[in-house]
Amino acid sequence: MAGTDHTRAAVMADPERAPVIVLVRPQLAENVGMVARAMLNCGLTRLRLVAPREDWMAEKAVAAASGADALLRDAQPFETVEAAIADLRRVYATTARRRDMIKRVLTPRTAAAHLRAFADVAEPAGVLFGPERTGLNNDDVALADAVIEVPLNPAYCSLNLAQAVLLLGYEWFQAASDAPPEQLVVNATRPATRADLLGFFAHLERELDACGFLRNAEKRPGMVRNIRGLFERAALTEQEIRTLHGIVKELRHGRPEARSLTEEPRETSQG
Amino acid sequence: MAGTDHTRAAVMADPERAPVIVLVRPQLAENVGMVARAMLNCGLTRLRLVAPREDWMAEKAVAAASGADALLRDAQPFETVEAAIADLRRVYATTARRRDMIKRVLTPRTAAAHLRAFADVAEPAGVLFGPERTGLNNDDVALADAVIEVPLNPAYCSLNLAQAVLLLGYEWFQAASDAPPEQLVVNATRPATRADLLGFFAHLERELDACGFLRNAEKRPGMVRNIRGLFERAALTEQEIRTLHGIVKELRHGRPEARSLTEEPRETSQG
Repeated sequence: MAGTDHTRAAVMADPERAPVIVLVRPQLAENVGMVARAMLNCGLTRLRLVAPREDWMAEKAVAAASGADALLRDAQPFETVEAAIADLRRVYATTARRRDMIKRVLTPRTAAAHLRAFADVAEPAGVLFGPERTGLNNDDVALADAVIEVPLNPAYCSLNLAQAVLLLGYEWFQAASDAPPEQLVVNATRPATRADLLGFFAHLERELDACGFLRNAEKRPGMVRNIRGLFERAALTEQEIRTLHGIVKELRHGRPEARSLTEEPRETSQG
Repeated sequence: MAGTDHTRAAVMADPERAPVIVLVRPQLAENVGMVARAMLNCGLTRLRLVAPREDWMAEKAVAAASGADALLRDAQPFETVEAAIADLRRVYATTARRRDMIKRVLTPRTAAAHLRAFADVAEPAGVLFGPERTGLNNDDVALADAVIEVPLNPAYCSLNLAQAVLLLGYEWFQAASDAPPEQLVVNATRPATRADLLGFFAHLERELDACGFLRNAEKRPGMVRNIRGLFERAALTEQEIRTLHGIVKELRHGRPEARSLTEEPRETSQG
């Protein structure tokens, strides 16, 4: 699953305005690498590390980054969360469980919309992610303006660090992506015009009348509607219309059918 | 980042109606395990495997499933894609790059909405994911009704198998989640009423008038608006209103200020 031309706008936004990802006390270097990989997929490049336990440029981290190791080289280390977010004006904290504190709770989609709005006005923002085993502690969360919770299966919620970053980054990217929700991708040929389609219907129905398939006058209108409907649904291309014309023509007027040994019609095997 | 009470509806839907995840020729058993983990996070439980290279119940797969190994035990193996999807009425294929074929291309969000609609009418549906290294081949994709592409950074798109499943599953879950986009979570206390808030404003402004802070009659209206505004934005709770009443009262009428050695006002250190 991957990128397209339609997503360029989402990436072209000034990367310096994209939110900072702040990993608080990450435990394993390879997880930092996997976070870098997840981030770059989503056009996020600014990584800060608070008191990482391992060397985030270790070989296993670079391997896990899978080509996104430039983010590791540019990552900024800090000793405390306070220092890591000192220059930010908006800070969100991701949490896996409700705390005994009063906080706004946002879905990733809403948080992403906010982060895009902050980026639009160049308001520096960041998102805190906690250590792999424990998540953020209450003091970390208290530093944030709001909490981000991912609505997932309440009976089983088990995201790893890079997956949590990926889901937020995915929503960040979607919030500015101009990918159409649905499109027909055609490579060598264009979608057929309605005239092309109607021309094919005329041809097909003429031949179906001629061969007797539509001989029942009472049922004919309904049958024609059904046949047209199935071809309409197919969203045919110009090339496919040409192919269908050829099929109808050849079925009717091509090489004469070889006499079969039985009287069984052969449509099913040719259809 | 995790589940909440608000997501129950999304999971309560009949799991037998949720789409089948079909892994086509998966290479590594631990990736199958990680897919199971990603699926269960999203309330997806039906896993099919086409010609898996390794034993999907191997120890490393169960470990990677991280508690979701029931999905591995229930996984159904097939020899071909055709056999794996024979009973399905809607099949989508996930792809990382455009093919030389004519297909509808959906975002995960649109695909998820379709899949929810199919589930609502009990129309069996499934989503194909290809092998880790190569993705689905053209013959696999040709069996699908439409293609799902994730809009991501066109300059760097590198999702692993479980991440691709996670993003689709995440959208599947969100499509039925009733988690509010933004909420104020309060545990021991309720949000304040407007009357509570206005009562506090009256108290505060009375004391600010009394102490002389609002003595400039010309500026007073604007100052009052600003002060009210900052407390309004805070979306205070009943308990916090009580706390603020106490703070104002004690600041004005509590233990008298100790004489400081200088004439400097002490507001900044007490504020």
